[in-house]
Amino acid sequence: MITLASDFGTPYPAAMKGVLLQRTDARLVDVAHDFPRQNVRTTAFWLGEVLPYFPPATHLVVVDPGVGTDRNAIVVRAGDHTLVGPDNGVLLPAARRLAGDAGRLEHYLIDEDGLGPIEPTTNQSEPDSRGQHLPQGRSKTFHGRDVFAPAAAAVHDIGIETLESLEWLESTTVDVDLKLPTATLEDERAVGEVLAVDGFGNVITNVPGSALEDRARVRANGEPVPVGETFAAVSVGERLVTVGSHGYAELDVNQGRGDEAFGLQPGDRVVLEPVPSGDG
Amino acid sequence: MITLASDFGTPYPAAMKGVLLQRTDARLVDVAHDFPRQNVRTTAFWLGEVLPYFPPATHLVVVDPGVGTDRNAIVVRAGDHTLVGPDNGVLLPAARRLAGDAGRLEHYLIDEDGLGPIEPTTNQSEPDSRGQHLPQGRSKTFHGRDVFAPAAAAVHDIGIETLESLEWLESTTVDVDLKLPTATLEDERAVGEVLAVDGFGNVITNVPGSALEDRARVRANGEPVPVGETFAAVSVGERLVTVGSHGYAELDVNQGRGDEAFGLQPGDRVVLEPVPSGDG
Amino acid sequence: MITLASDFGTPYPAAMKGVLLQRTDARLVDVAHDFPRQNVRTTAFWLGEVLPYFPPATHLVVVDPGVGTDRNAIVVRAGDHTLVGPDNGVLLPAARRLAGDAGRLEHYLIDEDGLGPIEPTTNQSEPDSRGQHLPQGRSKTFHGRDVFAPAAAAVHDIGIETLESLEWLESTTVDVDLKLPTATLEDERAVGEVLAVDGFGNVITNVPGSALEDRARVRANGEPVPVGETFAAVSVGERLVTVGSHGYAELDVNQGRGDEAFGLQPGDRVVLEPVPSGDG
Repeated sequence: MITLASDFGTPYPAAMKGVLLQRTDARLVDVAHDFPRQNVRTTAFWLGEVLPYFPPATHLVVVDPGVGTDRNAIVVRAGDHTLVGPDNGVLLPAARRLAGDAGRLEHYLIDEDGLGPIEPTTNQSEPDSRGQHLPQGRSKTFHGRDVFAPAAAAVHDIGIETLESLEWLESTTVDVDLKLPTATLEDERAVGEVLAVDGFGNVITNVPGSALEDRARVRANGEPVPVGETFAAVSVGERLVTVGSHGYAELDVNQGRGDEAFGLQPGDRVVLEPVPSGDG
Repeated sequence: MITLASDFGTPYPAAMKGVLLQRTDARLVDVAHDFPRQNVRTTAFWLGEVLPYFPPATHLVVVDPGVGTDRNAIVVRAGDHTLVGPDNGVLLPAARRLAGDAGRLEHYLIDEDGLGPIEPTTNQSEPDSRGQHLPQGRSKTFHGRDVFAPAAAAVHDIGIETLESLEWLESTTVDVDLKLPTATLEDERAVGEVLAVDGFGNVITNVPGSALEDRARVRANGEPVPVGETFAAVSVGERLVTVGSHGYAELDVNQGRGDEAFGLQPGDRVVLEPVPSGDG
Repeated sequence: MITLASDFGTPYPAAMKGVLLQRTDARLVDVAHDFPRQNVRTTAFWLGEVLPYFPPATHLVVVDPGVGTDRNAIVVRAGDHTLVGPDNGVLLPAARRLAGDAGRLEHYLIDEDGLGPIEPTTNQSEPDSRGQHLPQGRSKTFHGRDVFAPAAAAVHDIGIETLESLEWLESTTVDVDLKLPTATLEDERAVGEVLAVDGFGNVITNVPGSALEDRARVRANGEPVPVGETFAAVSVGERLVTVGSHGYAELDVNQGRGDEAFGLQPGDRVVLEPVPSGDG
C-alpha cells in the first residue's frame, strides 16, 4: 500500500499516480492533496495525526518549497512503515510516531541519478504539433513525479526489510529534524499555539486535552468559554473548548467556525487558564 | 466494496481509510467528502441519487452534527446493500431506494462498546515529544474514525446475510426516519422546493420532470423561462428549465450558474406553472 | 485500469464509478474532477501532460458542454491506450501524444442506443415517496453516467485489440480535431499564449522551454524578469520565468501566485524577448 500526500491540488497527483502505476501494483490511497501550500509544519502535524491509523505502508509525501535546490530527497524507515519525501522536516513528526519509542527510525538519502529516467508513454522521434517533446529526464520543479514517485514505487516493491538492496539509497542523517512546538503547562495555566485549523474551522492547539480535565469553563485568551465533551454541549453557534479527536484542546463553535469566532490562525498563541471565581 | 461519504473535507477521511484498511481488503470508493457541512437533508438527497448506481456494497456515511451525543450509531440492511452511519436520517432516503418496494429494510443498533478499541500504529509507552500519546479509546468528536469505520469494515467482511452474527449489532427501529419533501401537483401548477444546488450551480427541485412534459415554456416563480431538453437548447448564459439526470425539474443556465440567475438556495420554494396566453 | 477526468466536482463522478463497478473489476484512478467547467481546451492541455505518464489504460473523459446535442460520443485508440468521451476535441491532444509518431490513432463512433440501459439498483414497481422513479433510460444531461461510463467499462473489458467486436462501435473520423495553439519563435522573440494556470498560480505558456536557454533574464510582456531553474532561484515573493515540469516556459512567483503578479489568465498573449542591453 502506498499513501499519497501533497499540496498539489489537481491534476499533478495524477501524474504521480501514473508513474507509480507504471512500476507497481500497490494499492494507492490519497491522504490529502490540499495541504496548505508549501506549509511544511501544518502538513507534518496532520501526517502525525493520520498516518498512525494506517496498516504498514509506504507514505509518499510531497510538500516541497525547496524543490530543485540542494535539499535532499530521503526515505525514512519508521517501525513497520516507510516514508518518502523531501528532507525538510515534513516526514519527521509522523515518522517518530510510527516508530514509537521502541521502533527503529532510520534515514536514507536518495541518489536521484541512480533512480533511472521517467519514461512517458510516447514514442515521438520528432517534436509534436506544439513544437516539442514531453520533457525527457528529471524536471527541476516536479520531483513528486520525477523523483519521489519512482522512489516510492521501488521502496514499496523491494519491501521494508531489504531497503538496503536499493543501490541508490544510502544511510544518512537528516538535515532538518522538525519538532512541532509543545505547550507549557504551569500550575493550571497552559500556554501553547494553534497547530492547524481544520475544514470545519476547528482551531487545533498543541495544549494536551488533559489540561481541560475536571473543568466546566476556561479562559481562552482572556475570555471565559465553556468546556464541553461534544460540540452539542453548547447551543448551535456557541463557542466551546473541547478535546479533539487527536487529543488536543480545540477551540470550536457548534456547527460554526471556531477560527472566525476566536480570531485565530495557525501559529497564533493560545493561553488557557482557570476562570477566576466570580467571572463568567 | 465500501463507499465513503462525509462532510469532512480532508484529511479526516484518510484516517477512516486507515482504520478500514487495518481491518479489511475491501475496495474503497469515495462518494464525496464535501457534502454541505452538517447538512443531513442535502446529503441524504445526493446519496439517494448516487448509491443506487453502485453494485451491492457497504456504504459508510458520516454527516453527523450530533456526534458524541446520545444519537445512535446504526447499520441499515437495504436490499443487497448495507449502510453504516448515524441515526439522524441521513441513510434513510437512499436505503428506501436501495431496498425498492420488494426488498428488506432492516435496522440495527451498534453497541459501540462491543466494537473494540482503535489501535493506531504506535508502541509508545511514554508520551511523545509533544507531551502526549495518540488518543486511546474512542474520541467524542470523530466517530467516523472511531465507530463507523470499524463497524463498516466488520459489516463488509462478515457479509450481508450474516450481519446477526456480529454480537455488537441488535435489531432496532430508527429514531429519525427522514423523508425528503414532495412537491404538490395541482392542475398544471407544481409547488415544490429546492433540494440541492450542484457544483455547476444547477438548482435541483423536487418537482418531477413529468411536470414539464409537452411544455415549451413555464413560469418559474413568476417569470417565464424556456423548457429545454438540453442545456444547449438556449444560448450560452440564458436560463432554462430542464429535466435533470435525477429526473427532477432543474433551473439552470447554459454554461452558467442557475442558483445565481434565479436567486435560489436549498430549501427555497419553487412554483412552476403554465405561462398565461399572451405572456412571454 | 480506467482513469476518470471531468469538470463535475462531486458527487457526480461517484455515479459514474458506480456504473463502472457494476460492469468491471478494473482499477479506477481519478485524474481530476475539477477541470475548469466546460473548458475543453484547458482540459485537453492537462490531459496531454498527465495521461502519457500512465501505463496502458482506458481514459474516461467528460468535459462536455454540448451534452445532449448531436455532438457524437467517441472512442479513440491511441497507441496502447483508449480514450472515451465527447467528440469536442478534448481527447485529441492527449491521444496524439499517446499514439506518438509511430502509433495508431483510430476513432470510433459510439452508437448510444446499442449500449443498453443503465439499471440502478432498485426494484421499484411503483414511484417512491417522492412520487417518482429513478430515471429510466438515458438522461439528456448526464452522459458521463449514462453513455461514457458504460462504454468505458465495455471498452476496458473487451481489450484494446478487439474493440471492433463491440457492435455499437463503428470506425469514424472526428468532427472536432482540437489542436492547441503553438507559439511563434522568430529571432530571439517568442510570441505565445497562456494555456493554463495551475493551483499554485503558475502561468503555463505554450512557449517551449528551449526559448529560455542560456538566458539570465527575459522581458516578459515588456518587463524584465529573471530566468531561474528552480523557484528558489529568486527570493520568496519574487517573480521568475522558469521551465515547468511539462517543458514550457512558466511565469511564476516563488511561494506566491504568478497569475496575480503577472496579471495573466488562460488565453492571454505572452511575449518573451531578450532584455535590451542596459535594461534591467
